[in-house]
Amino acid sequence: MRLRNIPGAEQALLEYPTFVEQPTDYKTRWHERFQNDHPIHVEIGCGKGRFITTLAAKYPEINFIAIELKAEVVLRAAQRTEHRPIPNLAFVQYNAAQLTDLFGPGEISRIYLNFSDPWPKKRHHKRRLTYSSFLQLYKQVLKPDGELHVKTDNEHLFEFTLNQLSEALFQMRHITFDLHHSPFAEENVLTEYEERFSARGQRIYRVEAICRPN
Amino acid sequence: MRLRNIPGAEQALLEYPTFVEQPTDYKTRWHERFQNDHPIHVEIGCGKGRFITTLAAKYPEINFIAIELKAEVVLRAAQRTEHRPIPNLAFVQYNAAQLTDLFGPGEISRIYLNFSDPWPKKRHHKRRLTYSSFLQLYKQVLKPDGELHVKTDNEHLFEFTLNQLSEALFQMRHITFDLHHSPFAEENVLTEYEERFSARGQRIYRVEAICRPN
Ligand SMILES: C[S@@+](CC[C@H](N)C(=O)[O-])C[C@H]1O[C@@H](n2cnc3c(N)ncnc32)[C@H](O)[C@@H]1O
Ligand SMILES: C[S@@+](CC[C@H](N)C(=O)[O-])C[C@H]1O[C@@H](n2cnc3c(N)ncnc32)[C@H](O)[C@@H]1O
Repeated sequence: MRLRNIPGAEQALLEYPTFVEQPTDYKTRWHERFQNDHPIHVEIGCGKGRFITTLAAKYPEINFIAIELKAEVVLRAAQRTEHRPIPNLAFVQYNAAQLTDLFGPGEISRIYLNFSDPWPKKRHHKRRLTYSSFLQLYKQVLKPDGELHVKTDNEHLFEFTLNQLSEALFQMRHITFDLHHSPFAEENVLTEYEERFSARGQRIYRVEAICRPN
Repeated sequence: MRLRNIPGAEQALLEYPTFVEQPTDYKTRWHERFQNDHPIHVEIGCGKGRFITTLAAKYPEINFIAIELKAEVVLRAAQRTEHRPIPNLAFVQYNAAQLTDLFGPGEISRIYLNFSDPWPKKRHHKRRLTYSSFLQLYKQVLKPDGELHVKTDNEHLFEFTLNQLSEALFQMRHITFDLHHSPFAEENVLTEYEERFSARGQRIYRVEAICRPN
């Protein structure tokens, strides 16, 4: 996601109560931060945060943590919550490649990946957020039977993702090649990218994958 | 597959040495028919038999059994082998819904489904050869780690198939949304339908699924 560089984004973020300054402090004890024992759902690469903010408002009995690499993007997301406090939502600026800094084994019930960067070149495939090394990280932090939900407009990324998930012994379900014309359309929550791509007539692919022991 | 009704097709079939008149007699002892212990690969719905005949000629160390519902279609397939005997190939006229009449547990190493009828209407989905009840039959006759290879031009059938396979705990691999532009194109053997569909520019989907214990 490209945004004009916002000078001092890191500094500005500190103003927002949904922003977590030292997220590694909460590893294995996010429940202390949320002050309840509700299940934790994580979005990786949340962009400007429309999806996760909508979910958090819709499902108060779930705790949501949104992870985003870029400070200026997290800032945009945190700004959404400026005028309405959402106690079950936390924003974290972090690289998903270091996910195990943030969460202990089985701490998470669900991970969302929405419109992750497609990295079309073969030599960049290992950067894809569904590359096997990332899937192994997700397995480390997901509960047994925890879920990974993936949406994308990119057919090549989707095909790749199905193969990586099978190989990593995730069990898949509700695979759909056209989310917006599927039975899952009704409860679907749009992301920023999703709105843009589907306005252009692009189809949205989606899969749910369940974490099974290796 | 529609063909002009060939009167006496059943009778005519008896002339062909690749045709097996009483296939249920060979249940659990197909190796006696082939007179060797080579692995057995089965195609279900072989149509006019181009695919299986090509495979049988290419892989003499595998025994191939082609199953087809319609006598007049099997006849067309058997006629291909008229002028060149193929000892590792057998044609069977049978309904795949009764597959366990033909094979004992673990008797088969691989099943091919090529361009199976798509049955687009929801109320007909249970007729699809990748419907869960068929997958359970395949599990009964496949060896552990035996394989099911599926090709189709029909995107809806493919999406359905991936979901049914996941649910039945087959492990998938080499999922491709465009076989003819994939690394698997080179060793791909065309079927009659495949040639026709790809000439029209339609994409071919393919998946390999490995039979895991329930
Ligand atoms: C293409 S955008 C999609 C944004 C949003 N999910 C949507 O659907 O509108 C991908 C986002 O993932 C973020 N991202 C990429 N790699 C990441 C990583 N390793 N860790 C955290 N975020 C990452 C990018 O900074 C970008 O904001
Ligand atoms: C669409 S045609 C495809 C033929 C061939 N596989 C190809 O790719 O050219 C499907 C074939 O499957 C056969 N078939 C359908 N249901 C079957 C069943 N239950 N058992 C055996 N064959 C079946 C039909 O008779 C037809 O010949």
